[in-house]
Amino acid sequence: MPLWHVYHPPGTYTPQQKQQLAADITGFYTRFGLPKFYVVTLFHEVDASSFYVGDEPSRNAVRIVVEHIARHTDEPVLRKRTGEVLAELLAPHTKDRGLYCEFHIDETPRDLWMIDGIAPPPSHSEAERRWAEENRPTPY
Amino acid sequence: MPLWHVYHPPGTYTPQQKQQLAADITGFYTRFGLPKFYVVTLFHEVDASSFYVGDEPSRNAVRIVVEHIARHTDEPVLRKRTGEVLAELLAPHTKDRGLYCEFHIDETPRDLWMIDGIAPPPSHSEAERRWAEENRPTPY
Amino acid sequence: MPLWHVYHPPGTYTPQQKQQLAADITGFYTRFGLPKFYVVTLFHEVDASSFYVGDEPSRNAVRIVVEHIARHTDEPVLRKRTGEVLAELLAPHTKDRGLYCEFHIDETPRDLWMIDGIAPPPSHSEAERRWAEENRPTPY
Repeated sequence: MPLWHVYHPPGTYTPQQKQQLAADITGFYTRFGLPKFYVVTLFHEVDASSFYVGDEPSRNAVRIVVEHIARHTDEPVLRKRTGEVLAELLAPHTKDRGLYCEFHIDETPRDLWMIDGIAPPPSHSEAERRWAEENRPTPY
Repeated sequence: MPLWHVYHPPGTYTPQQKQQLAADITGFYTRFGLPKFYVVTLFHEVDASSFYVGDEPSRNAVRIVVEHIARHTDEPVLRKRTGEVLAELLAPHTKDRGLYCEFHIDETPRDLWMIDGIAPPPSHSEAERRWAEENRPTPY
Repeated sequence: MPLWHVYHPPGTYTPQQKQQLAADITGFYTRFGLPKFYVVTLFHEVDASSFYVGDEPSRNAVRIVVEHIARHTDEPVLRKRTGEVLAELLAPHTKDRGLYCEFHIDETPRDLWMIDGIAPPPSHSEAERRWAEENRPTPY
């Protein structure tokens, strides 16, 4: 958690640009105290003949699916803010380059989640802080 | 929203057949007033050695995952009807061609969704009607 | 249902190893009476330049997304146990081979699910038992 899927046209991003986007995404979450390694970003090239926006094949759309597990909030203002901040984060990688971008976030249950055979520690716990510091999962 | 992922054996669909399926899917949603561009359909070829139904590699299964964001209903009859109508829509692209087809729909929160940096307008709003008419997102 | 997506580095699994993992996953669910064919496992190769853990490209991580439709439980002990049992099931395919592994399970609504044009029968029904025995969907 979080898991990001980035569906994009072939050749949109160089490996360096992918790494920069992954770094920007990671930075968003580590600010809230999450371990770096919680953030997984997968890039998927989709050819125009397999990528439709409405009934038209698309060569310039980026469709992103985000799955949040570790942190949820019910606070409407914070939820709205999350969307806005992520849109700003994505703009240099999409909109500012002339790429159309849609994303949505799904929220999945925290208690059905395992990393290397360990159920991740509670939010804001001492163990979570240690995982973040050491950037790896260890028994707690 | 909606996002459709179609996982299918290599060579199952020509680009024209993919576009027709995307058009049929899009037509389902525009009848409810949704903008065409809300509907994104991604096709993913999966080789038999990577596609298992039970413990058997599959050469003739189509597995579809649908994510609904913009419209949810709690009305059991409407929910049942949605499944049935989509099954009919899919039949000529799957069952009638001898392809086994399974699909399910996930529902994700509307307030964690952004298109080109804009939170989409409320359902049935004037702005949503304008987005549908112009088939593009604009500030509202 | 369930649907398993296994995102892995290129060459991690031979077809035989994929089939064994699919068989192990299938075995987990058939013990609860689910038909074999409910279990779909898709393998997706992701190159290191498209697979980031934090801000680093990864060559040894396996990220698994599971979608549960047919059976949900609200019982905390059973939920915890599900994660643990699946972690044990996955260990020989991941951790024991030196592969880092994260998985999470999403739960999606049972009433928005269709197989070959049929809404699957209720849990533990006579029809479900018949589907399991015959390992195929038939009208009920």
